[in-house]
Amino acid sequence: MAPIRAQLIGATGYGGLGILELLMQHPDFEAAQLVARDDAGKRIADVYPHLAGRTDLTVDAPDTVQVGEGCDVVIFATPDRVSQQYATDLHARGVKFIDYSGDFRFTSTGDYARYADRHPSISDSTHAAADLLGQNAYGVSELNGEAIANASIVGNPGCFAVGIILGLAPLYADGIVEAGTVQVDGLTGSSGAGKKPAPLQHFSHLNDNVIPYRVLNHQHVVEAEMTLGRIGKSSGATVDFIPHLLGTTRGILNTMHLSVTQSVTREALLERFREFYAGQPFVRILDTPPTLKGPLGSNYIDLSVFVAEGGRRVVVMSSIDNLMKGQSGSAMQNLNIMFGLPQNAGMDRGPLYP
Amino acid sequence: MAPIRAQLIGATGYGGLGILELLMQHPDFEAAQLVARDDAGKRIADVYPHLAGRTDLTVDAPDTVQVGEGCDVVIFATPDRVSQQYATDLHARGVKFIDYSGDFRFTSTGDYARYADRHPSISDSTHAAADLLGQNAYGVSELNGEAIANASIVGNPGCFAVGIILGLAPLYADGIVEAGTVQVDGLTGSSGAGKKPAPLQHFSHLNDNVIPYRVLNHQHVVEAEMTLGRIGKSSGATVDFIPHLLGTTRGILNTMHLSVTQSVTREALLERFREFYAGQPFVRILDTPPTLKGPLGSNYIDLSVFVAEGGRRVVVMSSIDNLMKGQSGSAMQNLNIMFGLPQNAGMDRGPLYP
Amino acid sequence: MAPIRAQLIGATGYGGLGILELLMQHPDFEAAQLVARDDAGKRIADVYPHLAGRTDLTVDAPDTVQVGEGCDVVIFATPDRVSQQYATDLHARGVKFIDYSGDFRFTSTGDYARYADRHPSISDSTHAAADLLGQNAYGVSELNGEAIANASIVGNPGCFAVGIILGLAPLYADGIVEAGTVQVDGLTGSSGAGKKPAPLQHFSHLNDNVIPYRVLNHQHVVEAEMTLGRIGKSSGATVDFIPHLLGTTRGILNTMHLSVTQSVTREALLERFREFYAGQPFVRILDTPPTLKGPLGSNYIDLSVFVAEGGRRVVVMSSIDNLMKGQSGSAMQNLNIMFGLPQNAGMDRGPLYP
Amino acid sequence: MAPIRAQLIGATGYGGLGILELLMQHPDFEAAQLVARDDAGKRIADVYPHLAGRTDLTVDAPDTVQVGEGCDVVIFATPDRVSQQYATDLHARGVKFIDYSGDFRFTSTGDYARYADRHPSISDSTHAAADLLGQNAYGVSELNGEAIANASIVGNPGCFAVGIILGLAPLYADGIVEAGTVQVDGLTGSSGAGKKPAPLQHFSHLNDNVIPYRVLNHQHVVEAEMTLGRIGKSSGATVDFIPHLLGTTRGILNTMHLSVTQSVTREALLERFREFYAGQPFVRILDTPPTLKGPLGSNYIDLSVFVAEGGRRVVVMSSIDNLMKGQSGSAMQNLNIMFGLPQNAGMDRGPLYP
Repeated sequence: MAPIRAQLIGATGYGGLGILELLMQHPDFEAAQLVARDDAGKRIADVYPHLAGRTDLTVDAPDTVQVGEGCDVVIFATPDRVSQQYATDLHARGVKFIDYSGDFRFTSTGDYARYADRHPSISDSTHAAADLLGQNAYGVSELNGEAIANASIVGNPGCFAVGIILGLAPLYADGIVEAGTVQVDGLTGSSGAGKKPAPLQHFSHLNDNVIPYRVLNHQHVVEAEMTLGRIGKSSGATVDFIPHLLGTTRGILNTMHLSVTQSVTREALLERFREFYAGQPFVRILDTPPTLKGPLGSNYIDLSVFVAEGGRRVVVMSSIDNLMKGQSGSAMQNLNIMFGLPQNAGMDRGPLYP
Repeated sequence: MAPIRAQLIGATGYGGLGILELLMQHPDFEAAQLVARDDAGKRIADVYPHLAGRTDLTVDAPDTVQVGEGCDVVIFATPDRVSQQYATDLHARGVKFIDYSGDFRFTSTGDYARYADRHPSISDSTHAAADLLGQNAYGVSELNGEAIANASIVGNPGCFAVGIILGLAPLYADGIVEAGTVQVDGLTGSSGAGKKPAPLQHFSHLNDNVIPYRVLNHQHVVEAEMTLGRIGKSSGATVDFIPHLLGTTRGILNTMHLSVTQSVTREALLERFREFYAGQPFVRILDTPPTLKGPLGSNYIDLSVFVAEGGRRVVVMSSIDNLMKGQSGSAMQNLNIMFGLPQNAGMDRGPLYP
Repeated sequence: MAPIRAQLIGATGYGGLGILELLMQHPDFEAAQLVARDDAGKRIADVYPHLAGRTDLTVDAPDTVQVGEGCDVVIFATPDRVSQQYATDLHARGVKFIDYSGDFRFTSTGDYARYADRHPSISDSTHAAADLLGQNAYGVSELNGEAIANASIVGNPGCFAVGIILGLAPLYADGIVEAGTVQVDGLTGSSGAGKKPAPLQHFSHLNDNVIPYRVLNHQHVVEAEMTLGRIGKSSGATVDFIPHLLGTTRGILNTMHLSVTQSVTREALLERFREFYAGQPFVRILDTPPTLKGPLGSNYIDLSVFVAEGGRRVVVMSSIDNLMKGQSGSAMQNLNIMFGLPQNAGMDRGPLYP
Repeated sequence: MAPIRAQLIGATGYGGLGILELLMQHPDFEAAQLVARDDAGKRIADVYPHLAGRTDLTVDAPDTVQVGEGCDVVIFATPDRVSQQYATDLHARGVKFIDYSGDFRFTSTGDYARYADRHPSISDSTHAAADLLGQNAYGVSELNGEAIANASIVGNPGCFAVGIILGLAPLYADGIVEAGTVQVDGLTGSSGAGKKPAPLQHFSHLNDNVIPYRVLNHQHVVEAEMTLGRIGKSSGATVDFIPHLLGTTRGILNTMHLSVTQSVTREALLERFREFYAGQPFVRILDTPPTLKGPLGSNYIDLSVFVAEGGRRVVVMSSIDNLMKGQSGSAMQNLNIMFGLPQNAGMDRGPLYP
């Protein structure tokens, strides 16, 4: 069978690199073309020397390329407001695409605007392909598998959001979260900020440091609140979220505190989580607290649950590799679903430890 | 004036090292004798080569030493249940002492027992010097200065506790914390666990990792709850606490979430904190979130406060160097107070950055 | 075809873990049995939680196991002087084995004794299976492929040695290294020291540190000198070697200085290296200096060469993942060769970056 | 006595920060004015929040300032080719200055040109104050104390150079280094590259990495070769030098290999080093290998020497904090000497460990 050909836009950032590596080792997909403004004309193995000997692909400049040509799917590993410029044309031509930014995570212009207003680098909250919203699927694979399978447009989730959503979904689905009690501390490695040098990611500043930022104001919370607030028996969700940048490269560990409307036990909750995620190849419910390194380099999300004395206050922890389950791993998982493959096809790479 | 002579018990752990270095650069104190089981007979500069050229002191074995002899104060940088063996004798002889463990953080046997029951390495919750409890002071310098000045026995606070207590004290003092809402994520460097090699502190395991441990069950919470629950207008305190071990050496950053019983603004809270800690040389109220490295190597505690939309949910963050304000720095501050010196005497060393 | 069944002795150390993970993703091999003293009776996924959901294998205690039974090959991921106790019996029964220690890196008792005398934890330099020496092969796959293919006993190389040997082999083979000029600084991550907590690997000590150790006295030099001294036109080799322990988990970067007996250019040397290693799937000759992270998680060795003004002084750098090419990766490569498979069968995992 | 007033040019980089902190805790100096292009108009404690509560100084823009006015000394913590623009004027007005760049490390235009030609960011090797060369002193305090004391212009040494020079000076002074044999591997933290974000110092790239750079081509070698080649019985010096950037913030550890013209023992060399540096407060000769963290935060240089079998090949290791002895610490030491103070006045801060 001919491989599924993917055209990769934004190929030289960490997001592009991540999906390229997954495509390269996938039996059914092929990285057909790499497109990026930075380093156009170079071999990707010269941009990323760790790829030496693994690929001869060269980076094409955007102005020399027809987006959506010669491929079965386009992958936008680009910042916000790029893919929406191409969306109408691609959709008209029947070309599927997946996007890493917030452009297609929302299914109404109102939802999108609420996100865009919160985003630090979006000044205009009008969506350039507003009439496509509603035809897209939000790519939290474990919750929206059917929608993703049927969609030709998928919005890959935010790295913090996917860890929060999967961690809290069973509780919101059961409608037992007390309103206004969810407090989340997110701990993240530096790679989520991408490849471009910046003061927060300057080594001398970040090494051995913890830097809280965008306190109570991170844009990923919007998609988390919307998703959790509309699941199962849930009726709305509020998440107070504080991201902490750590002096480490990969990983996001979310520690999530909340009150529940009925008394629970740890054993019952663990059981409920295992049942909720039964059959999901990338969700692991652990008896011990997840660690940041546990899923390193893999697409796993590690979850555990704890209950305070009295049974009314719950702590959920989730750990992911932010560049895998938090980005390219989820994208590959969604691509598998979009093309009718098992969601873990080509993705059996285990975590790297120690 | 003759220097104040300090005898240091447990001199070769990180706690002993920290106070030794502070004593060495103090104009009024002198490290008169170093006592430790490990490395007895060695020069301390051979145990810790970074001290080369700075001191000729040698470590004496406990069995060759009279505790409390030839000194004005004894510093126990020892594990739980060591100083209480010596306490009655020292007190009878009128020798002041300060202790790093939980032995003298509590002023009643009931309080001590509650702590001891929670402690993972204490099997017997009977205090060996029970009749001295009540004559000791709990060494959170900023809150208990007068008691410390008058006490001959001071219990130095736990590293997590001091950051939580100073971060929440103004709110508890004002009686505005809603009961049962305090959720704290503590992020700590490895050095709090001391010098002894152990699996959690093994480099290959901890590097680039975050390891939650003793979830909802850490013993430092006991002293935090007792102290906060009895301050100002407060009537009891409950703290849900989750320590996270980070792949870094020094520092504790506590992110503390809580609800308040009346609507507040960020500006008003910052102002209240500045007023509460007015004149305190080591407390810094910042407009920006504190960072883990901000106080590195110094005795500062950096604090900031944030308020969620609606004015009823508050986040306080505190950052300390766990070996300074979290341990030896607080001890030196308390020793200054005990001997009538300004609390920052000999302690003007600033943070090391980058 | 039935899988090749491997019995793994010393399964719970980092070496055992590494080969287990390679066996698990290998199409032709199977981890048939895990044997270890530590954690016997436990599921390996409980010992290493990052394996959750990936394997149900349980660790068997050595005294409950017949070494060499029910398998096609035994893998000793054990310390020095373990495998030599089993060697005679296994050889008599026709069971192949590979050993991670120095036990079968040498093909004469004299060579072995020279190594054993240098080793810090070997007190007796008599080999327990002396008559098998000569029938074993030294497992530097790229140099000794034929011998490894024909041997039933393979001694896997030392982590520092493999990087030094492959870096210098082309120069020694050509006989152009000036005697007594080779100076090597080796930089290593902590994981080479294994899983057991120890003072040098204590996080608070090693983090942000560089610790030179066993200066001019490391036992891996012995196998490097012997191998290089007997290759091609070489007539003896002396290597001055200084290992430096770094505050990082994985990787060995060797910077090797030497004088050559004739004037050379960088271009000619790079060409010579490319020719020397033509067809070798795991050797990459780079135009730029190799970095420690370049091969992370993979079996690559990255090499580059530089020439000082005048053409008579050469610098070779090699970089490997010490747990892969420096240990389990070489072992898997050797196992492939021993069983007639392509040397990179089941090993196409690329490096993890960033 | 009135404090010595220092005007600090380039105050907001790491070099400016370092000397500011040393001036702040110095009993005889005062930071009279901070000047910098970046962050002009801000309080320095807003630029560097770890200074909160320690100083109210504000940064002045260069165009609002008269360089050399209202001060006793000017400190240029600026890039190459800045101070030489001001030098003639300052010298004419009798204002002393010290410069962090290469501008005044050389005492002839020929020497300067050799350095400038090697420097990656200097395009013009003509010195703008050529007639002052010869009146300046090169600021390796331990070797040139008298010249520094008498000079009104001091060129502070390069961070790699000071560690190489002090490590090899005793051997070159004795004239026993065999020509063309010196091979140096330098390991450096990231902070030497300063505060400005750049790809090599991007956290995700550098963390856990080692990156060799400017192989055999670093400009600091020029001043090292000139200094070592003209000391005592020396007649010329060649140093092959390879800098390696480490994933750590502070510190430079140089491992230096060389051959000697006569047989030596380790004991004799250690003795010779101790004699050579007798009375120097910042030089520590250790029996054990120096570690990178040993001098962290202090002005010490830690040295040790090893001898290979045969007595003709020697390894010297030196370790410094690159921002202290490698930069601001040396500057403060030189300023002390320039103003007739003990060279360690105001500088008794010990290393930070762990």
